[in-house]
Amino acid sequence: MSDKNRIPYKIYIEESEMPSAWYNLRADMINKPAPLLHPETHEKMTAKDLAGVFCDELIAQELDDTTAYFPIPEEIRNFYKMYRPAPLVRAYCLEEKLGTPAKIYYKFEGNNTSGSHKLNSAIAQAYYAKNQGLVGVTTETGAGQWGTALSMACSYLGLDCKVYMVKCSYEQKPHRREVMRTYGASVTPSPSTETKIGRKILAEHPDTVGSLGCAISEAVETATNTEGYRYVLGSVLNQVMLHQSIIGLETKIALDKYNIKPDVIIGCAGGGSNLGGLIAPFMGEKIRGEANYRFIAVEPESCPSFTRGKYAYDYCDTGMVCPLSKMYTLGSSFMPAATHAGGLRYHGMNSTLSQLYADGLMEATTVKQTEVFAAAEEFARVEGILPAPESSHAIKVALDIAKECVKTGEEKTIVFGLTGTGYFDMMSYEKFHDGRMVDSAPSDEDIEKAFSKLPHVNE
Amino acid sequence: MSDKNRIPYKIYIEESEMPSAWYNLRADMINKPAPLLHPETHEKMTAKDLAGVFCDELIAQELDDTTAYFPIPEEIRNFYKMYRPAPLVRAYCLEEKLGTPAKIYYKFEGNNTSGSHKLNSAIAQAYYAKNQGLVGVTTETGAGQWGTALSMACSYLGLDCKVYMVKCSYEQKPHRREVMRTYGASVTPSPSTETKIGRKILAEHPDTVGSLGCAISEAVETATNTEGYRYVLGSVLNQVMLHQSIIGLETKIALDKYNIKPDVIIGCAGGGSNLGGLIAPFMGEKIRGEANYRFIAVEPESCPSFTRGKYAYDYCDTGMVCPLSKMYTLGSSFMPAATHAGGLRYHGMNSTLSQLYADGLMEATTVKQTEVFAAAEEFARVEGILPAPESSHAIKVALDIAKECVKTGEEKTIVFGLTGTGYFDMMSYEKFHDGRMVDSAPSDEDIEKAFSKLPHVNE
Repeated sequence: MSDKNRIPYKIYIEESEMPSAWYNLRADMINKPAPLLHPETHEKMTAKDLAGVFCDELIAQELDDTTAYFPIPEEIRNFYKMYRPAPLVRAYCLEEKLGTPAKIYYKFEGNNTSGSHKLNSAIAQAYYAKNQGLVGVTTETGAGQWGTALSMACSYLGLDCKVYMVKCSYEQKPHRREVMRTYGASVTPSPSTETKIGRKILAEHPDTVGSLGCAISEAVETATNTEGYRYVLGSVLNQVMLHQSIIGLETKIALDKYNIKPDVIIGCAGGGSNLGGLIAPFMGEKIRGEANYRFIAVEPESCPSFTRGKYAYDYCDTGMVCPLSKMYTLGSSFMPAATHAGGLRYHGMNSTLSQLYADGLMEATTVKQTEVFAAAEEFARVEGILPAPESSHAIKVALDIAKECVKTGEEKTIVFGLTGTGYFDMMSYEKFHDGRMVDSAPSDEDIEKAFSKLPHVNE
Repeated sequence: MSDKNRIPYKIYIEESEMPSAWYNLRADMINKPAPLLHPETHEKMTAKDLAGVFCDELIAQELDDTTAYFPIPEEIRNFYKMYRPAPLVRAYCLEEKLGTPAKIYYKFEGNNTSGSHKLNSAIAQAYYAKNQGLVGVTTETGAGQWGTALSMACSYLGLDCKVYMVKCSYEQKPHRREVMRTYGASVTPSPSTETKIGRKILAEHPDTVGSLGCAISEAVETATNTEGYRYVLGSVLNQVMLHQSIIGLETKIALDKYNIKPDVIIGCAGGGSNLGGLIAPFMGEKIRGEANYRFIAVEPESCPSFTRGKYAYDYCDTGMVCPLSKMYTLGSSFMPAATHAGGLRYHGMNSTLSQLYADGLMEATTVKQTEVFAAAEEFARVEGILPAPESSHAIKVALDIAKECVKTGEEKTIVFGLTGTGYFDMMSYEKFHDGRMVDSAPSDEDIEKAFSKLPHVNE
């Protein structure tokens, strides 16, 4: 490889080159994402409507689709310096193993204790809560990456953090739970007796193992009923995508340093926080007509919001207490199979990404779980990093394209987001090793049934 | 902090600045470490004696106490580039939290999937095995960091890797086991029916949960009885300390860039691989009279080789099949309490470090387990990184010195080795959180009893 001496294995940008503002892609969009609607009145949500649940500054960011750049406060920039810039890695070892003429890069977000990119938004949300003089925040967590990230951020700022953890995860993932406790968070298995909704669910279903929808409801109830608390969320919202733009901005700075122009940019898609953050500045260029890129969202076949969902207004939560968002959705009552990429088990999709997809500015594809783990293992063995199952969805598609280049001889430049590490997912790897992992796609009937329960909204 | 703009949070050196040779501290020592002796004849071990067990190049490195620098082969340097240079972190957040005038730096070796510095030697040992035309290597693992590192290295080079994992760890640490399997290693619970010694032990003690000593014996037996295999070891040996000098060399390059002179350098001490690697170039300066530093080895009070051990010839393994090494030892029959820092539960110490300690060139101290976990949590909450229990021994002493500086007003510059992450140690953290963790030091009687079984060697 002749350019091995020119482009290092890991492109780190200097602290002084780190972005000082987040990029709000919505400002550059011609067709803006549809506004949030009130779950009962179906009126456009105002800052006032959201004030009891979310922090004021975050509401302002959520509703703003005209300001292109939001300066990153100094305290957040200092926190970012603890674990950022994240390296942009040139996958020389993988390229060599595949014998591909493609050039593969990945932005690795797993180099922090929370194990994923979630920390980028957790610190921002915790900061604005602290700045507003709040005592603490509440949230829910399933797989646990978001809960861990928020615990770390709150511990750093001296903010209380109450996490409602889906009961089956609380019991099956004690390691995750203990990381959160190490960071001083209180972790409550959900449903719990601490909330009205929790007690109600427990009375009706004493043996329930809980669900994300229920945990959200408990976290929201606690936030709204407790003086000095607000609720925070780790994905789906546009504020989260704004904070996550740090991923794409850093990636672009690193690529620009070496005059690298990606042909294709790939990210896994659950609620859209990582994908949206990674592609934001590149999509901005595409919309403004300054460059052209191919963008691919990768979904699990068990939860195919983009590829089999409907572009419609829907509840963001299964509890149907949160605002309605126009998005690609499988219906808030859709129950995805128990796939091992817990972070991608979401029925809907961020509204900005949904609008971009509707406008034909990006593609989406689905992959099977067993193929994902096979790709994860193939990647781990040559690139060293043990990827999270979520991240491995992007790896699978990147590998496919790189292998296609072997045949065609094309020297495509591929960039993908490696969102996190799989240290807390080894029981899923074990299933894969033991041949006990199965693939499953929802039936058309299941999806139609969930569609039939979508709210009726007159747009 | 006025110098915040000058020294970044993380000092990364460029790929081009990475060391191209390992440093062999023994070459600069006035009193050389004592030679290895044959376990039966007590004669000085020769390369020929060791050839059936170890790889040829590694034997040459093990026995060489005059060559100061060993060039790092290009393939190893390329592998290092996947996860190195490791950052040298300025602990600004911790300093601010403590309100200390001390300047705290740590070299973080946890930024790779094996989770620790062990990979630095694993890739070197696997490389030389491959280079010799071998088919595979065998080893033992307890806590699992070494086994994981070796699996990664072997998978990268296409070498077979057989790991004997202490049975209780195999059962209690399934996550670790699955990481090794992801990297293609075969992991066998020890004692097993695969070896003569394993079958013998199982016949005598069918319910045994295994021990490191037994796993070593099985790994050695398999290596010597299988065509094309050799045995490799992750600590204690001087070859390992040589490879680990990469830690200290990078640290020194990073410090020199900013003209930083440490006052004290701190490392946790089990077999000595990390401590030896971190201090090597600094100790070289001290011995050559070019600079003066204070070095502190930190041991668990449950396994105090330096502080309560004897400087004597002893077996490196509990099975008494490996060579005799002159070292600070508690006796190869000493059984440390079941502390949670598995990586520090070794009865002896690297022979080079032992000689340096005997010559008064470094200090050693012990810390209690509960204090170590309290320090780990204090550190994690402000610096983000979740440290391994082993690494947290060094953190505890660094914190103590930094807190002392608050009182005295001294602006000491502290450097410590943060050898790895604690993701697979959350059950120990849980014990700590739940108040179920206890401290324990061995009694004088226990130590005297183990001393009485030391081999009689006429020096």
